[in-house]
Amino acid sequence: MKIETPFDLGAWSAAHLDRVERALERWVTAEAPAGVDHGAPAELVEAMRYAVLDGGKRLRPLLVMAAWEAVSGETAMAGHDEAALRAGHCEAALRAACAVELIHAYSLVHDDMPCMDNDVLRRGKPTVHVKFGEASALLAGDALQALAFELLTPEMDEMPAAQQARLCRLLARAAGSAGMAGGQAIDLASVGVALSESQLRDMHRLKTGALLQASVMMGAACGDAPNVAQAALGRYGAAIGLAFQVVDDILDVTADSATLGKTAGKDASQDKPTYVSVLGLERSAAHAQELLGQALAALAQSGLRHTEALQGLAEMVVNRSC
Amino acid sequence: MKIETPFDLGAWSAAHLDRVERALERWVTAEAPAGVDHGAPAELVEAMRYAVLDGGKRLRPLLVMAAWEAVSGETAMAGHDEAALRAGHCEAALRAACAVELIHAYSLVHDDMPCMDNDVLRRGKPTVHVKFGEASALLAGDALQALAFELLTPEMDEMPAAQQARLCRLLARAAGSAGMAGGQAIDLASVGVALSESQLRDMHRLKTGALLQASVMMGAACGDAPNVAQAALGRYGAAIGLAFQVVDDILDVTADSATLGKTAGKDASQDKPTYVSVLGLERSAAHAQELLGQALAALAQSGLRHTEALQGLAEMVVNRSC
Repeated sequence: MKIETPFDLGAWSAAHLDRVERALERWVTAEAPAGVDHGAPAELVEAMRYAVLDGGKRLRPLLVMAAWEAVSGETAMAGHDEAALRAGHCEAALRAACAVELIHAYSLVHDDMPCMDNDVLRRGKPTVHVKFGEASALLAGDALQALAFELLTPEMDEMPAAQQARLCRLLARAAGSAGMAGGQAIDLASVGVALSESQLRDMHRLKTGALLQASVMMGAACGDAPNVAQAALGRYGAAIGLAFQVVDDILDVTADSATLGKTAGKDASQDKPTYVSVLGLERSAAHAQELLGQALAALAQSGLRHTEALQGLAEMVVNRSC
Repeated sequence: MKIETPFDLGAWSAAHLDRVERALERWVTAEAPAGVDHGAPAELVEAMRYAVLDGGKRLRPLLVMAAWEAVSGETAMAGHDEAALRAGHCEAALRAACAVELIHAYSLVHDDMPCMDNDVLRRGKPTVHVKFGEASALLAGDALQALAFELLTPEMDEMPAAQQARLCRLLARAAGSAGMAGGQAIDLASVGVALSESQLRDMHRLKTGALLQASVMMGAACGDAPNVAQAALGRYGAAIGLAFQVVDDILDVTADSATLGKTAGKDASQDKPTYVSVLGLERSAAHAQELLGQALAALAQSGLRHTEALQGLAEMVVNRSC
């Protein structure tokens, strides 16, 4: 029996964050997986855990869970029976949520390295290469990417092979050369280059948009959604993926390092093109609101009933202050 | 109709290498995959292609193809009808072969970077970071890992979802923290450390053994093999995986850089523990032959009829001079 109450994004997020944190804690481990006779070396796993645990907004996992709930009509809110949830598709959604976060975490580790952004501060802590050395940071990032695909391919009957394959496909494409890694390569080549708005958009569609959109699509892939809903969720994901970056660029000039937990003003000082440098602050803010409108319109067109969390997350992405 | 002729490993390898090279050429590309509206940035793909194409012994792809042939009783030798092969499982085996090679290639790119082995020569050419810069080498490696999982998850009916999921599972485990990346982390921590033979074996089981063994298991996963055959192929893969490293350690002290296509004597100069430093040259050579014996015994126990290529590859691994 469900009792309809006004949707509380804070409570919803807290419950899901708790679940995601516990799952990451369990899965990023030196213990050998079932059927394997050895685990991972402790020193590598320590760097991997440092990169992943206890930090970050976990926006991508929340998008996965919200999309899964929207298409399945189920909820993984705390208080529900764990065993029942595990027997359902929640386990798949949780694995997808953590896999996306591992890809995101590895990209930050590599992005912070001296040969890339050379950043020493992340989430208010020393970056992985500062703490563990460059070689360990490189390997920890590499291992986190592999672990993401391990999480998506458990030897368990509850997660059908078709779902495993589809999730791997979505994640691999979003992470690779025509997705996140490709976007970072364009970013790298764009320092000191004047980009048009459309070139900037293309870069960010790959660099951050692809993985954010994949989060939504992977959540949807954990349930059964009609094609029209899948397509609408794709548009939602594309809109908030871009909105996220527009707001990131705004915050880079309006917020301070302590609030962001990373070095503010970095893009401008590195002469990187941003939405603010191309559109100005005011038009960037208006563009973010426009993208929010597109995201909410897509949800309305999806035909799905339980889109409250997706709606709340879109608003949070655009109106956040850090 | 099949005509039984003495097995010719040279002709077999040449035919398969040709097929693998053409497939890599086709798949490591800036073109957008079907159903995706954008490709990868050209500059990133150039570095990826440089890292992958036109070089290497392709031992891992050959192991995949040989294992597939052993379990399927089919052959993908040149001259056979391409369309018929594509309709069979050969396409899956070819994808698996290339996926494993992409993981291997990415590991070399990252391993050569200044923060790791700082090597400037690979396969007789400047390493990727020397040619394209460190940041591009980092991203190219990252993108190659993602591409491996893309190759394993095509949207095609000919490759069943269960096969896609199983291949991703095998590859992710072999590449990750309890496989290749884990072995590299142990390697990193072992510079200047005196290891016992069993510690050295454990390191190499992860560092090179896991991916070589996975190559065999992935080939087997592209066909239908009884459990006893799968287990035997696993033992074969473990034995040649270790043998490969023992011989690598021997060649590091007995061959010159021109023959190897990479810097010889590197391990000793970096004070890394090797089979030669632990066992001495003579006992290392004897150990390699012993492992070859184990590999061939496993093939005999497999109950499979067409193991000629696997047998030939095992002999090649142990008796190679570069």
